[in-house]
Amino acid sequence: MILGTIMGTVVSTRKCRNLVGFKLLLVEPYYGDKKDIFVAADTIGAGIGELVLVTTDNTTQYALDRSAPVDAYIVGIVDAPPQPGR
Amino acid sequence: MILGTIMGTVVSTRKCRNLVGFKLLLVEPYYGDKKDIFVAADTIGAGIGELVLVTTDNTTQYALDRSAPVDAYIVGIVDAPPQPGR
Amino acid sequence: MILGTIMGTVVSTRKCRNLVGFKLLLVEPYYGDKKDIFVAADTIGAGIGELVLVTTDNTTQYALDRSAPVDAYIVGIVDAPPQPGR
Amino acid sequence: MILGTIMGTVVSTRKCRNLVGFKLLLVEPYYGDKKDIFVAADTIGAGIGELVLVTTDNTTQYALDRSAPVDAYIVGIVDAPPQPGR
Amino acid sequence: MILGTIMGTVVSTRKCRNLVGFKLLLVEPYYGDKKDIFVAADTIGAGIGELVLVTTDNTTQYALDRSAPVDAYIVGIVDAPPQPGR
Repeated sequence: MILGTIMGTVVSTRKCRNLVGFKLLLVEPYYGDKKDIFVAADTIGAGIGELVLVTTDNTTQYALDRSAPVDAYIVGIVDAPPQPGR
Repeated sequence: MILGTIMGTVVSTRKCRNLVGFKLLLVEPYYGDKKDIFVAADTIGAGIGELVLVTTDNTTQYALDRSAPVDAYIVGIVDAPPQPGR
Repeated sequence: MILGTIMGTVVSTRKCRNLVGFKLLLVEPYYGDKKDIFVAADTIGAGIGELVLVTTDNTTQYALDRSAPVDAYIVGIVDAPPQPGR
Repeated sequence: MILGTIMGTVVSTRKCRNLVGFKLLLVEPYYGDKKDIFVAADTIGAGIGELVLVTTDNTTQYALDRSAPVDAYIVGIVDAPPQPGR
Repeated sequence: MILGTIMGTVVSTRKCRNLVGFKLLLVEPYYGDKKDIFVAADTIGAGIGELVLVTTDNTTQYALDRSAPVDAYIVGIVDAPPQPGR
């Protein structure tokens, strides 16, 4: 999974009906290249600035109640920035 | 998902029969390396210059009425460029 | 999907039986890093120098008559190099 | 699969219910760009500093007793750093 | 698929039971960044120094007799290094 920081929201009025009901959040990777910002679906209620755990590709489906065309999904809010060695 | 800008169309006369009926659009990533242009299938009707939301890999299938060999699919048209912090 | 140019063929005599019957073609990405050459399976009959459309990962399976261990498959031959803005 | 070194743990109290029961570990790639640290789920009991083998994407599911939204899973602890040529 | 050269073997005593029976081989990409060495499962019997064809992600499963948590699998041994233009 990827650790990322919530940067903002994405609003899409004309969208696929299977996307309705998801909040779409901009996520900046915590490790690696911070410019590779992506969009993750959220139902947990992550807020701007929070550090989250994102799963990708088809494994998103195992967190959902029904199938949805989302290749990144927020599966957890991280309690504190990780401290290598602990 | 990836945010991208529609750059143009791709025309393919000799193609897999399961691709028939999809518009094939060139998409430039909005974040990250803009040279990594790719092709996404579209049925929403996105136009050149519009900012779109693209899902990838097998999760494309959850937006389709029938299975199709497309690893990138436009699932939404974004209302306005995202403003980090909102 | 990825746009790529056919560079040559790959011959493998000792191979997985589910790969029998596919032509294996070297593909150079048209956009992005041209050094990231990969191998795609083909049944359409793409020739060297042709510009093709490749789908990846599990979505290859939706173009096949039977499942096969191929993570890149040529789903179309592109009529002409894309012209951004059209 | 990816070879990586365990760097630490990630704690998430508010998380998807299908993630409960997994240890979440920070993994630094052993080859390639060491900055691309990611999070893998673990049930084998890998410890900090150990070299592990990680499978990714949907193939994680074939190691699990029940489906879970994890795109990286530790499938083995490596006995010793690999020695190219052996 | 990816072309790669076998560099060595990886030994893991404590591993997921679904990995038992596979040889785990270090593979160096033939094209692209040679530092991105990865591990592929093998049952064909590829040897050190041989050039192989590797399929990735979930498509590995279509080469296997039973599902296994491997995201890279050697599906063929290449007869000779590819010669672009042939």
